Amino acid sequence: MIRFESDYEEGCHPQLMEALERSNLEQTPGYGEDEYCKKAAEAIRRVCGAPEAAVHFLVGGTQTNMTVIASALKSYEGVLCASSGHINVHETGAVEYTGHKVLALDSHDGKISARQVEEACRLHESDPDMEHTVKPGMVYISFPSEYGTLYSGSELKALRAVCNKYHLLLYVDGARLGYGLMAEGNDLSLADISAMSDVFYIGGTKVGALFGEAVVINNRFLADGFRYHMKQKGGMLAKGRLLGIQFLQLFSDGLYFRISEHADVQAMKIKEALKGKGYDFAFDSPTNQQFPVLPDGHLKKLEEKYSFSFRNKVGNDRSVIRICTSWATHDDAITSLISDISAL
Amino acid sequence: MIRFESDYEEGCHPQLMEALERSNLEQTPGYGEDEYCKKAAEAIRRVCGAPEAAVHFLVGGTQTNMTVIASALKSYEGVLCASSGHINVHETGAVEYTGHKVLALDSHDGKISARQVEEACRLHESDPDMEHTVKPGMVYISFPSEYGTLYSGSELKALRAVCNKYHLLLYVDGARLGYGLMAEGNDLSLADISAMSDVFYIGGTKVGALFGEAVVINNRFLADGFRYHMKQKGGMLAKGRLLGIQFLQLFSDGLYFRISEHADVQAMKIKEALKGKGYDFAFDSPTNQQFPVLPDGHLKKLEEKYSFSFRNKVGNDRSVIRICTSWATHDDAITSLISDISAL
Amino acid sequence: MIRFESDYEEGCHPQLMEALERSNLEQTPGYGEDEYCKKAAEAIRRVCGAPEAAVHFLVGGTQTNMTVIASALKSYEGVLCASSGHINVHETGAVEYTGHKVLALDSHDGKISARQVEEACRLHESDPDMEHTVKPGMVYISFPSEYGTLYSGSELKALRAVCNKYHLLLYVDGARLGYGLMAEGNDLSLADISAMSDVFYIGGTKVGALFGEAVVINNRFLADGFRYHMKQKGGMLAKGRLLGIQFLQLFSDGLYFRISEHADVQAMKIKEALKGKGYDFAFDSPTNQQFPVLPDGHLKKLEEKYSFSFRNKVGNDRSVIRICTSWATHDDAITSLISDISAL
Amino acid sequence: MIRFESDYEEGCHPQLMEALERSNLEQTPGYGEDEYCKKAAEAIRRVCGAPEAAVHFLVGGTQTNMTVIASALKSYEGVLCASSGHINVHETGAVEYTGHKVLALDSHDGKISARQVEEACRLHESDPDMEHTVKPGMVYISFPSEYGTLYSGSELKALRAVCNKYHLLLYVDGARLGYGLMAEGNDLSLADISAMSDVFYIGGTKVGALFGEAVVINNRFLADGFRYHMKQKGGMLAKGRLLGIQFLQLFSDGLYFRISEHADVQAMKIKEALKGKGYDFAFDSPTNQQFPVLPDGHLKKLEEKYSFSFRNKVGNDRSVIRICTSWATHDDAITSLISDISAL
Repeated sequence: MIRFESDYEEGCHPQLMEALERSNLEQTPGYGEDEYCKKAAEAIRRVCGAPEAAVHFLVGGTQTNMTVIASALKSYEGVLCASSGHINVHETGAVEYTGHKVLALDSHDGKISARQVEEACRLHESDPDMEHTVKPGMVYISFPSEYGTLYSGSELKALRAVCNKYHLLLYVDGARLGYGLMAEGNDLSLADISAMSDVFYIGGTKVGALFGEAVVINNRFLADGFRYHMKQKGGMLAKGRLLGIQFLQLFSDGLYFRISEHADVQAMKIKEALKGKGYDFAFDSPTNQQFPVLPDGHLKKLEEKYSFSFRNKVGNDRSVIRICTSWATHDDAITSLISDISAL
Repeated sequence: MIRFESDYEEGCHPQLMEALERSNLEQTPGYGEDEYCKKAAEAIRRVCGAPEAAVHFLVGGTQTNMTVIASALKSYEGVLCASSGHINVHETGAVEYTGHKVLALDSHDGKISARQVEEACRLHESDPDMEHTVKPGMVYISFPSEYGTLYSGSELKALRAVCNKYHLLLYVDGARLGYGLMAEGNDLSLADISAMSDVFYIGGTKVGALFGEAVVINNRFLADGFRYHMKQKGGMLAKGRLLGIQFLQLFSDGLYFRISEHADVQAMKIKEALKGKGYDFAFDSPTNQQFPVLPDGHLKKLEEKYSFSFRNKVGNDRSVIRICTSWATHDDAITSLISDISAL
Repeated sequence: MIRFESDYEEGCHPQLMEALERSNLEQTPGYGEDEYCKKAAEAIRRVCGAPEAAVHFLVGGTQTNMTVIASALKSYEGVLCASSGHINVHETGAVEYTGHKVLALDSHDGKISARQVEEACRLHESDPDMEHTVKPGMVYISFPSEYGTLYSGSELKALRAVCNKYHLLLYVDGARLGYGLMAEGNDLSLADISAMSDVFYIGGTKVGALFGEAVVINNRFLADGFRYHMKQKGGMLAKGRLLGIQFLQLFSDGLYFRISEHADVQAMKIKEALKGKGYDFAFDSPTNQQFPVLPDGHLKKLEEKYSFSFRNKVGNDRSVIRICTSWATHDDAITSLISDISAL
Repeated sequence: MIRFESDYEEGCHPQLMEALERSNLEQTPGYGEDEYCKKAAEAIRRVCGAPEAAVHFLVGGTQTNMTVIASALKSYEGVLCASSGHINVHETGAVEYTGHKVLALDSHDGKISARQVEEACRLHESDPDMEHTVKPGMVYISFPSEYGTLYSGSELKALRAVCNKYHLLLYVDGARLGYGLMAEGNDLSLADISAMSDVFYIGGTKVGALFGEAVVINNRFLADGFRYHMKQKGGMLAKGRLLGIQFLQLFSDGLYFRISEHADVQAMKIKEALKGKGYDFAFDSPTNQQFPVLPDGHLKKLEEKYSFSFRNKVGNDRSVIRICTSWATHDDAITSLISDISAL
């Protein structure tokens, strides 16, 4: 069975594993106060063009989202996000567990627009009983979105503008950030995203690391006390250096970008093959996640050799599935899949 | 200015005020452990045909909803409700503040159907990563709904059946329960609602009392420790007897039902007058809340003498408004309003 | 049975009941946005000498404490208080329910000192792993304390100074504020307390009202969004005017102070009688709560006619009890009790 | 600098690192649903003699404590623990953040007794206003305690008995479990601890793993829905197999016990050396943490070459420090330290 069901089915890039092994018996202070974490933070600040940013390392995405959001919002504030946003549908209500309402906005492609944000804010402000409704306090977007789609530079700029207008924080979930940055047609750099968001994170779990997400805080009001929040929410890793060591590898010589590009290239090969056979796509994704619509018979055939994540039925006899590539996807796997697609 | 903007603009029914005055200088134990509360609970059990029910008194609706819901759900469970449900839109995220996600279902008339509940549960159960999504644990409905509409006996029965099938609790928000029970065409009795729900509340604030909601718990698993929950959530009134005294008046000789009927009758007079002029209604409500669609010019005229709650614009030149009657609405006010409607 | 077990066993002062009755059928806006609330807030600002203060009305003490504390602290901050503090022992963990640790300091007389606060802050600041411990963010004191004792002007000044030094908020729980202000020997005015605290509340429930606590916020950072917090925590009374009407009576002609003084005078008569018989006191209280140590035989005798709250055994055959007077305590009750004490 | 300041300053035991490396590029399902986790759970059940236990893997100790406690308690219940308990002092109020009060009991050696638990429960049950106080719902103990001390078999049996009597859950924090089990004089086996607790965890972070704690749930009421809790609290590792791989190594051939014994043996050498010089100890610990009282001059000398964690001053010129050994402590380090101690 060759797995295409997610982008976290292998361990980590061999270069990271070697670094972990090399340092394994060194003694360092705990909780992210070691030299590896300091250097990794410095490397990230550099690549983000954000010399003043605070950088902290957490273990996983849900943990990161709940910690960032809970640390940034007042208790009566909620977070605007696409109805398909990870925090709205796939984190078991972790954000609500911290006391905050997720204010879901209708979305068909995984994205929300500045206009939708503006409408939500206007609706709130125009309510004579506004204190009876949750106040929008933050905009959460994923880049790429859960459907593999990307915000353009002008879309992100418009979101930043509406956030400024209504005093909202802008938070970018970058669980798959590399796959977005390296996608064909993307017009946003890491520095752009850093400059336009109050806080964002660079995903490691899905892009080359065993685990780990690097939170980059540009808004200094959010930086105060962040380590307390990390500890209180159970997210401060005792041997924090494991995070520093991995991110230092990812960001010291461009590895993060190279392996991200690899996944995108592999995904485009699959996309072309599927397009060539005339299949539709639920979303037009330039990144490592592809969402083709397959006849159920064809899908059944492919599933004899490959695993995908099922998403949902379309009509009676077709299904949207998700096919994921990653930094680890071999050419062999791609060649095999493409050949089997052609044979359908 | 004659106010029709809500059903809590006066104090309490004079009979309750007299009872409060009469007992004012008596000494009693606090926290609802007095004889008035005991008698009121007994009267409520009787009228509900629920001799085993636990009855507790709280001060307000939001407090009641958050206390009931938080006491009944496991921390990873959420509550299904109409998108227009009070807990979803008008309680500043109080339910989320207790850690639980409100799982909103699309609704156009303030109601949800058994089929919608079933779909939500099936979707959850069929998810291979079900632990990543919030588990539906309760169905919340309002009777009448926030739009004045009612569930029929068969609709409620169907909801009960789907709750049984998926092990969901059924909770009925009865902030305006009396206005629903006494509405023309309603085929549910208080005893029916009690028998079909795990827990519900009888609203006092909007139906004759200064304040107060009587929680009736039929599911004994929910009754355990409820007083701890009340105290912890700040909802245990020190001079609890004030609640007992009022509910004892409301339920000792049918007062609650009589004054509810009065409000419905008054609302029907307004409805007829509006219908007579050919106005549309956003919702077809048989209860004390009416939602006509008025040309903005006519609305402006009426607002010289009356206050309503504005709901929203329809097209460029019409608006849906809410007109509320209550136990306290005088014939004079009705006569005046109807005459001014006729003159539009 | 004559009750001395608490100071909330009657309804409200007759002057308040009359005001409630008089206004009962008026129509007003809800949620504290009526004229009564505005006037009451204005009267309170005047008597506090705090023209800029925000004043909000809540229903009960636990609700007030949890709302104020949760609205003021960052999520990783805790509140320092005496081990006997109401929030630490008698609110079912309501503060913890909002996510904050109560940092209890040893106390024998219900009070804490500036030195204890300083030690706690120093301990936190000197911890190399300070982010692993809860950061003190607020000092909570009760005036009078749960044991009837009072802070002197110099003690409160010292607390204010240490709060300034360590950037702590100072919150005064004034559930029985009047009884403290009017006590013999007290050297603090309402204006002093207002000037020295960031936020405090004036208790109505125990001092003449049916219910109600007036929160006075002097620190403008705490005032922002307070109504959202009230609603979210279930503490915004629909018919908010009931609070305004009562506080307007209490503070328009000095009623609050006169009835508080009455309770203290009555308590002093009991204290003198007990002292005259040679009984010890667990605490030396100049306010309406007295804590004598009685031989169990004598206590049993008194309990034939009077109710007290039991506190705890002292050795094998004596007990500390609490005797409470209130604004409502009649001369007859006092005369009777004193005569029965004398006869022991 | 040779570090003795904690037992998590190195990475993991080489055998675990090899296993991680070996499996690095395998594809497996995520979230702990892989074969490694299944086998590790099975190995743990076997070594615990608990064939029915549910075993789940989390990343860190604070995360484990908050998840277990929050999943097990009703919202109005609190957890009894020693005043020195990790959850009370070193987790930034993580338990309170989930809404529960930590009910601290005085402790001088890091332990609490069955009698203290009984007193706390009696106090609660005898309170006429018991609903105003937090209900004890769980007993939390650490084995070994934060001061390196151990519960004897009879002490643990007594705790179990009092938990049965008052319907309390018993939870054992085993962050350093191995160091306790292998200590000289310990009379409790892993199977004993498993049999006597409702839930406990086997610490990996401090005993040979890069990270990871194995929660063993014997009380089936606590097992329901635990994976939802893990995900909601941010504790479900995407590449869950990393935990399974490590615990499988630790428990497949007794490695966990051998490396634990090693640390204890090293600690005893230090203890003997210190005793030989006549130093006092703050606690009499048979495990890997030692708490000697050293003259500040001697301490300063040692700190030129070694790092310890400072605990606190004793009088003017002495200090208690903590010296930790671990599975990774080399003989060289011990020889060096002992020789320098002798030379003081």
